[in-house]
Amino acid sequence: MTELNTVNREGAMLETAPTLYVEGRGIRFAYRRLGPSTGTPLVLLQHFSGNIDAWDPAVVNALATDRPVIAFDNAGVGRSTGQTPDNIAAMARDAVAFINLLGLSQVDLLGYSLGGCVAQQIAAGHGRLVRKLILVGTAPQGGEEHLLAVLQDAFSHTEAPDIRLPLFFTKSSASQSAGLAFLMRVKSRIEDRDTDSGKAVTDPQAKALITWCAAPDPEHAMLRAITQPVLVVCGSHDTMLPADNAYTMFKALSNAQLVLYPDSGHGALFQHHEFFVSHVRSFLDA
Amino acid sequence: MTELNTVNREGAMLETAPTLYVEGRGIRFAYRRLGPSTGTPLVLLQHFSGNIDAWDPAVVNALATDRPVIAFDNAGVGRSTGQTPDNIAAMARDAVAFINLLGLSQVDLLGYSLGGCVAQQIAAGHGRLVRKLILVGTAPQGGEEHLLAVLQDAFSHTEAPDIRLPLFFTKSSASQSAGLAFLMRVKSRIEDRDTDSGKAVTDPQAKALITWCAAPDPEHAMLRAITQPVLVVCGSHDTMLPADNAYTMFKALSNAQLVLYPDSGHGALFQHHEFFVSHVRSFLDA
Repeated sequence: MTELNTVNREGAMLETAPTLYVEGRGIRFAYRRLGPSTGTPLVLLQHFSGNIDAWDPAVVNALATDRPVIAFDNAGVGRSTGQTPDNIAAMARDAVAFINLLGLSQVDLLGYSLGGCVAQQIAAGHGRLVRKLILVGTAPQGGEEHLLAVLQDAFSHTEAPDIRLPLFFTKSSASQSAGLAFLMRVKSRIEDRDTDSGKAVTDPQAKALITWCAAPDPEHAMLRAITQPVLVVCGSHDTMLPADNAYTMFKALSNAQLVLYPDSGHGALFQHHEFFVSHVRSFLDA
Repeated sequence: MTELNTVNREGAMLETAPTLYVEGRGIRFAYRRLGPSTGTPLVLLQHFSGNIDAWDPAVVNALATDRPVIAFDNAGVGRSTGQTPDNIAAMARDAVAFINLLGLSQVDLLGYSLGGCVAQQIAAGHGRLVRKLILVGTAPQGGEEHLLAVLQDAFSHTEAPDIRLPLFFTKSSASQSAGLAFLMRVKSRIEDRDTDSGKAVTDPQAKALITWCAAPDPEHAMLRAITQPVLVVCGSHDTMLPADNAYTMFKALSNAQLVLYPDSGHGALFQHHEFFVSHVRSFLDA
């Protein structure tokens, strides 16, 4: 258990919590922290192009009812300064620097998509710092990705009110309506919103993700270096980083639980947020 | 919600509940029922060679805290009369006859191993009777099985105090010690224990399971006929009915959630009983 040396922010929500800053190693990191002041903090590692306000309040607030939860912008993203690196290893170093700056000696990590690659890299290299790991909609080194093709297709849906509807949700009416509800939630914060990502963020991030998946790791050395308990989560119809990745990771990891959700895409954790929160909780509390 | 026309047996446990009987269609079925008198009953369909007392009290009693749970012996098994059929379709007919005899108009099914095949057959043919389906350590039609080879290997472990230790658990010390704890639980009932299965049960059951897996169903017609929500569960190292079956079923079913557990075999639901109960509950309550 790591005591956070900040005031107890119990009751604050992602939509209302103030954005805080911590500075070191030449980077000023933006973050928000929610939940009780004690307990192992859960640090969230965000997807390609996403910032703090791209997290779903339904997920983050529910998880923060019984543990500290920290959402942050990695170097160069959102309102964090510094440069977005073009490789996962450097992103992992930046994230560890942020965790160290907060004075946390042990954390749980929830890595989503690109953030899941970063989370694997951190967990493999920091056995003591990372207690448990949650990997959502992500890929192992050498995994399968259709990032550019899917992005291109999604941007052709000019009728969509938000790129995340075609990108994160399936074509079913149930998934699309869950997507609209998700958008309502992520857009509910009006003031002090995080800064959207431009090409200075997305270009190196895309390169990092594509390079990660292009790097062959047939023996799964990275996954085998992860000894912590892992919860692997994916949607049945994730078009960018397909569910086969999740099954591959489950089989190669020494201590992983796998949860796959029906009729869902890259945003499975937002579509099935009640299931997801329940599954994460029982995993972290065990 | 189906009201059971029996007294409220809330508080009774699998180890202490009386064995009841219901008769019809020439078969006298043995069963025990636990939990509240209202709510959709969860009917358990047992594995190859297993009887009512082969269910884990840790799983059954926990599930029965908030729903009716019914464990029974299908035709010919344990203390039920009649003949054990040598095919899944007939086992499904017998199980439906039992459910009808209890006067239940809608149930949830938890089918484990052989019982999971029976559960698929029932769900595919009875869209109204079956509300939700839980498939554990089982295979689709045409699925992968190593039943005879694994049984043969297990019976060579003459040092094992119970065949289920090598059959249901991995070789790791964590899994074996979970196996010993499971055996303590299933053997804790002393009086009114169910009758063990002889060859008149296991021969036709083995034939049914092997025939089911040998019957090709490349289009997954059986799974596609199942429209109910399904929770598919398996252990990472199930040697008899490997986890690939579970992933296959997840992909072919229209509305399935998949949960796989680490370092576990065919008895994953007993080894990880706290996770399993939590996952079943959130699935059934959604």
